[in-house]
Formats: sequence, structure tokens, C-alpha cells
Amino acid sequence: MLDNKENIKTSISELGEFGLIEHLTKNFKLKNKTSVRGVGDDAAVISCSDEEQLVVTTDLLVEGVHFDLSFMPLKHLGYKAVMVNLSDVYAMNAEASQITVSIAVSNRFSVEDLEDLYKGIETASKIYDVDVIGGDTTSSKTGLLISITAIGRCKKEELVYRSGANENDLLVVSGDVGAAYLGMQILNRENQVFQVNPNAQPDLDSYTYLIERQLKPEARKDIPKLLRDLELTPTSMIDISDGLSSEIMHLCKQSNVGCNLYEDKIPLDPQVISTCEELNLDSTTIALSGGEDYELLFTIKAGDFDKIKGNPNLTVIGHMTDKNEGAHLITRGNTKIPLIARGWDAIQE
Amino acid sequence: MLDNKENIKTSISELGEFGLIEHLTKNFKLKNKTSVRGVGDDAAVISCSDEEQLVVTTDLLVEGVHFDLSFMPLKHLGYKAVMVNLSDVYAMNAEASQITVSIAVSNRFSVEDLEDLYKGIETASKIYDVDVIGGDTTSSKTGLLISITAIGRCKKEELVYRSGANENDLLVVSGDVGAAYLGMQILNRENQVFQVNPNAQPDLDSYTYLIERQLKPEARKDIPKLLRDLELTPTSMIDISDGLSSEIMHLCKQSNVGCNLYEDKIPLDPQVISTCEELNLDSTTIALSGGEDYELLFTIKAGDFDKIKGNPNLTVIGHMTDKNEGAHLITRGNTKIPLIARGWDAIQE
Repeated sequence: MLDNKENIKTSISELGEFGLIEHLTKNFKLKNKTSVRGVGDDAAVISCSDEEQLVVTTDLLVEGVHFDLSFMPLKHLGYKAVMVNLSDVYAMNAEASQITVSIAVSNRFSVEDLEDLYKGIETASKIYDVDVIGGDTTSSKTGLLISITAIGRCKKEELVYRSGANENDLLVVSGDVGAAYLGMQILNRENQVFQVNPNAQPDLDSYTYLIERQLKPEARKDIPKLLRDLELTPTSMIDISDGLSSEIMHLCKQSNVGCNLYEDKIPLDPQVISTCEELNLDSTTIALSGGEDYELLFTIKAGDFDKIKGNPNLTVIGHMTDKNEGAHLITRGNTKIPLIARGWDAIQE
Repeated sequence: MLDNKENIKTSISELGEFGLIEHLTKNFKLKNKTSVRGVGDDAAVISCSDEEQLVVTTDLLVEGVHFDLSFMPLKHLGYKAVMVNLSDVYAMNAEASQITVSIAVSNRFSVEDLEDLYKGIETASKIYDVDVIGGDTTSSKTGLLISITAIGRCKKEELVYRSGANENDLLVVSGDVGAAYLGMQILNRENQVFQVNPNAQPDLDSYTYLIERQLKPEARKDIPKLLRDLELTPTSMIDISDGLSSEIMHLCKQSNVGCNLYEDKIPLDPQVISTCEELNLDSTTIALSGGEDYELLFTIKAGDFDKIKGNPNLTVIGHMTDKNEGAHLITRGNTKIPLIARGWDAIQE
């Protein structure tokens, strides 16, 4: 007899990236006494010596999903792949010390291509003082895939999680936001022009910062150091990989607080403002949902404000509220609208 | 003017997996004082406390290269992916404590498929006392890819590298070898039969051990423990993932010694012997080149022989010689033939 029963299968895109991770890892309990923190923060934490803890984080970059080699040179890709991981280490207020690098490559790539990729990895590891201590190299059926694991160290009492923010804490962001996303829009546009007319000479002078933020982002190694110099330990911290609003929602959820974000405080580079005008885009939307900025977003006690006042690297963009108030954007026109997490999702159809 | 200069590109298959890793990582020097050992052993080593060091290892498994889902159930695949990594931790004589698991999946896979995969990962982590502390989940353009990083711990003085073997040390292997490779041959054969006649009922009773070794290998967590109980620290150690001869060559090269391996000492399961007869294969060739056994291969001082004598888990299969003598197989007929590393290579055309 034929079996006609059809299995009902759930598409992975129904859950989305975060939903899927949560769903698949919900049964994983930490049992070893050396496992301090597992899934759910920028990095996991394991115990080391009495004073120090290690943070461990891993990221997978897939060709066609996370990068497009038609405008991403392999050397830049290698550099960026390291940045993506180090950013998670710095988001724990830790110092990055080692990485492992695994790649799967199809035979479309030559040894010289991989040399370029590794040149970028080598440059990043030199500038950021991390050692490449291992990895794996294998073939793939299609395209290129890079899996990096980064390890960092931090004094126990200086480690910062996503979950420590309290009501009335100030919300602070390093650098500026939105540029990397616009860089991608410009590169896409130029790529389309090139498809139509390969002889067109692109004039990219007005977009140099945007393109640099997309193709050669820098992780904020300087911020944990600066915070140490200022004798300031944030109450919570996260890196901005998926867009400001999505990361604020993570802090709120894991710290059990609400938030007021002030539109007029969001730091934007002049090229972001001019390019948004040119492309007829709302710069606040770009800043909130753009992603790939690799800046650090953190909260500090209100009493610590004097320590960061006037620092050109840091901007206070809001404050945390009672959980029941929810997370809101206070617009320039003083309207209060709910924040929606609309960051980039690596699980797509 | 058109540029007619053709770039000469080198195919990655020309270098092979080990050649490629060596080539790409040759510029990577360790600079941080916490980096004890980098690329080139089963795992990297980083310092932790005064007494303890951590080992870190990472492996990438790619569908169509490392596994075939037409006969590998996803649950088994999850289990095996963990084993592959833990085996590298045990090969350092360390205790595995944490893993991170990253996957890239195409939309061919459902949430239920991934639940099966993670069920296998969960089972492995429970049985082997390791915590899943993190990972990444993303989409891929084709197929499934699993990247696992495993972390273990070891007292400094008990850590074992590939490089410590000396002349006259005994060469010892745990368990038996060759079965996993034959398991794959049997599964391939049955798969071909199934393609021709989907109603054929395979009779796999004579191959149960072989198939289990292929589909559900176990890493030798028990061996580092046994060695500790015996108060025996090997002089060098490696895990057998690519075939006995290839792993012996690694020990010889990194320890700067030669080796005599005795054909009649190589431990083979009765199913390996009977299946080799049936398939008209030479069992020694299978043992030397088969791979995926996940046994441990190590060297001990000759004076430590009494500690392992008669232990059913361990077999002395040879001894190390002067480097100039090279690595040889001493056949049953007492002929001395050079060992050739013909293990499995993940970099293929």
C-alpha cells in the first residue's frame, strides 16, 4: 500500500534568523562549570583563570547571501570577515586575541584568489593584534564560504552583557550609523550602470566614506580601551550589525527595560545626509534599519555622563525607561512612535 | 587598447588540502603571549590559568564533499559533526568542554530537518559532556554546511603534540581501523542497488559494525582518561581522520623521526576482514588509506610498554626510527616497503 500521508514541513524563512536560532538551541543547557554564558549574547563566555574570562564568537559568511564578489574584492572580504567577528568580541568589552579561519571554496577560485583573501585576513589580524591560530580549508560545490571564530579576554568584572541595562541609563552609540548600507546602495547602482555600459567611468568622490564603510569596515577595538581609560564600565552593550533599531530592541528585551531614542541625536555623517537627499531616502530609516555599521551601542548609568561628555567618539542618543513604556523613537517633531526591529535577516527565502 | 595579458592562475587542487593550508597560513606568526600553538596540530593551544591550557579546533563539513544525505540521516550527521571535532580535542590529550555550531542551509531544508540535525548535536553534547555555547545560522545558495569549533582543557604538562615522538618510541593505536571506509563502500553499493530497484530489501547484517563506524562514529573520549589512569603521557598523538598511513607520516614529519609499521599488528575487526575478502580488497590498503576511523594514534616511550600491555583498547603497531630510515611498512612476508600518505583529501577538482 502506498503511504499517502504528507509530512507537513515548516519553511525556515517562517522563523527568521533569530527565531530559528532560538528554536534550535532552546534545549541546550549549560552543564560544565567552565561555561559561564551560552547562546544569546554577542559572544559566549567561558571561565579561564580566577581573574579572567574568555569570550568566544563565531560568524559564517556565505557568497550570494552576505557578500557579492562582483564588487567586493577578495582582500577586502578577508578583512571584513575578521572585523565582523572582532566586533562581537569588543561588544563584550573584551580584548580580541585569537581567531580561527575556515573556508570552503569551489574550483572557480584559484590559489591566487585565496592568497588575496588571506592577505586581507592577515592585514586585519596584524592591525587588530589577533593571531590566526587555526582553521580548515575544504572544497565547496558552489561559491565561497568563510567561517571565523574569534576568542577574546576580559577581566571578570569588566565583562558587559546585553542584559544589564536599567531604567534611566543613558543609551550611547560610537561613531555614526547608516553609512555602510548606503555604500551598498551606491555599489549596487554602479554595478547596474556597469552592466549596461562597461565603459562608463563611475564618479564616486561624493560617496568615499559610504563605500569605505561597506567594503572596509573597522571594528571598534578602541572603544573598550577608551572605556577603560575613562574608568567606565557600560551596564549593557551590543554591536550594530543588523541596524540600530534591531539592536536597541535586543538590549531592551534582554535587560527587561524600555527605551526612548531621540531622532535628532542619531549621529549621521554628512555623506549619509547628502546621499539620502539625492536618493530620496529618509536618513532616520536608513540609520535605524541599515545595518553593517559595526559600531558599539551601550548603556551607562546617568551618573557617568560626565565621563563621556564632549567625547567625539560617543553620542548619547536616548535613555532607558520602564519596560512597560516600550521602545520608542522621539521624532524631531516630538512625536513618539514605536520602534520596529527591521534589521537585516540572513535567513531569507 | 585592449589588455591581452592573461593571468596565470593556479588551481587549488594542485596544492591539495594540506599544501593549501600550509601555503595560505605560512605568513601567520603568533604574536600574543596567550597564543601557545597555532596552525599545524590537531588543535591550537592558548594559555588560560597557570596550570591549564585551552585547545581550540574547528572543522567544516560540506554537503556533497564530506557527506551525502541520501544515506546519512540528519540526526546522525549532527552527531558525527560533533565527533569529528571532539576527536581533535582528545588527540591533544585534552578534555572537551564547549562547542559552537554554525550552519548554512538552503531552503530545501525545513525546520523539522534542522530539528533532526540539532537533535544529533544535542545527543552528542550530552553523551560527551560538552556544552553548545554559541553559533550562527544562515541561508546558503545550495545544500547544507556545518562549521563546528570545539574547545577543550588540559593541564599544561599533560598536553600532547604531534611533534614529541623520539626514536625507539612505540607506535600505538586505539580500537581498530578501516571499518568506516568499508561502511561507506557498502552504503554506496546499497544506494546503487536502490537506484535500480527501489523495492530491494538490503541485507546488511554482515556489515553492521562497518555501517555504524561510518554513520555513527564515536570519538575516543575514554583514551585520554585511560592514559591518565595509567599515569602515561604519550610523547606524540594525532587522531585518525584521513587514514593510518597519512597520520603516521604527520607524526614522523613533525617529530623528525622515521617509523616501522608492522602489517600483522594492524588491528582489524572481523567484519573488515570478511568484507575485504568479499569485495576483493586488500585489508591493509583499506586500513592505511581508508580514513574516518576517529581512533587515536600515539607514541609512548618503550619503557612505558608495561603500562599498556594486554589492554584491549590499545595495540602496539610499530616503533619510531631515525629520520633517515624513513617511514616503512613491514609486510607479513617481512618485506620493507615505503609508506605513502594516500589519505582522503578534501580539496578535489
